[in-house]
Amino acid sequence: MVFVKRMAVIGVGLIGGSFARILREKGAVGEVVGIGRGEANLKRGVELGVLDSYSLDPCEGVRGADLVFLATPVCSIPAMVERIAPYLEPGCIVTDGGSVKEFVVNACEPLMPEGTFFVGGHPIAGTEHSGVEASFSTLYQGKRCIVTPTENTDAAALAKVVELWKIAGSNVPLMDPVQHDRVVAAISHLPHMVAYSLVNAVDGYDRFGGDLLSFSAGGFRDFTRIASSDPVMWRDIALTNKDAIIEMMDFFVDYFDRLRTLVESEDSKGLEAFFLNSKQKRDAIL
Amino acid sequence: MVFVKRMAVIGVGLIGGSFARILREKGAVGEVVGIGRGEANLKRGVELGVLDSYSLDPCEGVRGADLVFLATPVCSIPAMVERIAPYLEPGCIVTDGGSVKEFVVNACEPLMPEGTFFVGGHPIAGTEHSGVEASFSTLYQGKRCIVTPTENTDAAALAKVVELWKIAGSNVPLMDPVQHDRVVAAISHLPHMVAYSLVNAVDGYDRFGGDLLSFSAGGFRDFTRIASSDPVMWRDIALTNKDAIIEMMDFFVDYFDRLRTLVESEDSKGLEAFFLNSKQKRDAIL
Repeated sequence: MVFVKRMAVIGVGLIGGSFARILREKGAVGEVVGIGRGEANLKRGVELGVLDSYSLDPCEGVRGADLVFLATPVCSIPAMVERIAPYLEPGCIVTDGGSVKEFVVNACEPLMPEGTFFVGGHPIAGTEHSGVEASFSTLYQGKRCIVTPTENTDAAALAKVVELWKIAGSNVPLMDPVQHDRVVAAISHLPHMVAYSLVNAVDGYDRFGGDLLSFSAGGFRDFTRIASSDPVMWRDIALTNKDAIIEMMDFFVDYFDRLRTLVESEDSKGLEAFFLNSKQKRDAIL
Repeated sequence: MVFVKRMAVIGVGLIGGSFARILREKGAVGEVVGIGRGEANLKRGVELGVLDSYSLDPCEGVRGADLVFLATPVCSIPAMVERIAPYLEPGCIVTDGGSVKEFVVNACEPLMPEGTFFVGGHPIAGTEHSGVEASFSTLYQGKRCIVTPTENTDAAALAKVVELWKIAGSNVPLMDPVQHDRVVAAISHLPHMVAYSLVNAVDGYDRFGGDLLSFSAGGFRDFTRIASSDPVMWRDIALTNKDAIIEMMDFFVDYFDRLRTLVESEDSKGLEAFFLNSKQKRDAIL
């Protein structure tokens, strides 16, 4: 089993905290340093046993680390890599958990000093909660973590990152960053755009005095759970995976328009077929 | 407490079965007769203790009933009322659980023989499962059942139906049928149209060989749970609440377009505000 002597986690929230928890639990890491801007959260991380220590200064925090895990909103990742780069130990591997990969990998690879390595990753796991308090060691169990090497990626660094995610309990497919971004645009980013829009639309429908949401039942609450996700995280995803998200939004609207036509024309058979196909495809992924 | 001597349930599935279960459990009903086309399901209803007896013939089944509960897909309700009308006992109350009320109430009221009463109702509760096997007595606990009287509704019959739903554990707001249909179009019908379209769109996106759905995580599964709902039930809802559904679909697309513009123009502040408003409104209904 691979072993990390000292891991620096930048952004100790649900993603970073859960990764630290499981690697500690499995004995795959010696020491964990938390790095962030919120001291209360970092202190709580130490109290919870997620971290051994913390630093508010990333340059200080990454010293001596053989692994740096970046779990901050996507847009801030390249600037953070640029900032810590001069302080990385030779041989250090920097990896991330960002939801968009082409933007991150293209920006970070050229920033890495000779003899240090960048490997992009994206664990497809999460809840709508955030902060170290929300982290738990089984978050990645049975989930996928897509790792996105390029032609520049060091083979040994790649193998080590893959192994760590396997230790965390994940399946670890490798994927081209561009392909990754299209896949997650479809299965994650599009549903979030739809859910955020749906809640805003229902909230904005004032025909009955705006009290509509109070009538919502369990179905609506489940359906819109992902609309409770962190706005800053999703702002960054929308900014950095724009082309793929726009493509999927337009693709969705095409299907939504087809359904509108079926409703408008009272096409009984067409409606049933549309709903049945969806039900069958959805039931198949359970 | 009101008491029903003999209740006929037409359509013994999740909705009809759960209503029978709770009224039995509370001692609010003497005898329950199940009516349907699937004999295996009705037999199972007797085995499970949901029904005392069953009939495949609605006209036979409703004899002697002082309450008839219609829990079939919306489109079939008026034809069923027309069929059973000549066999109803004097004083009998017919009520339903259909998800669309203007269509049902307008069609059924004129069909009722002198001295019998129609009251429209809609329990906002359900799961994606169907059949008597899926029914359970706490389905309506803490939920809303919207009852939709008109100027023609008999006051005593209305009071009895309201009381029965309260016994089932529900809050029972009264609402005009037209207003009801707009409210549920927003909080239930629109989300279903969106979910069905989303699954079909992701399924139809073949850029990566159609294996996209296999990458879906918990968020996608929760989000699309309602796309596993019964296609026939939803076909009928789309057919009978067309105007309200089209109105809400267009209203949604307007918001979705606004979001698309924010993504396209990389409007960082606008994106964050859009997501934040949605998160706050959604968190408030928990």
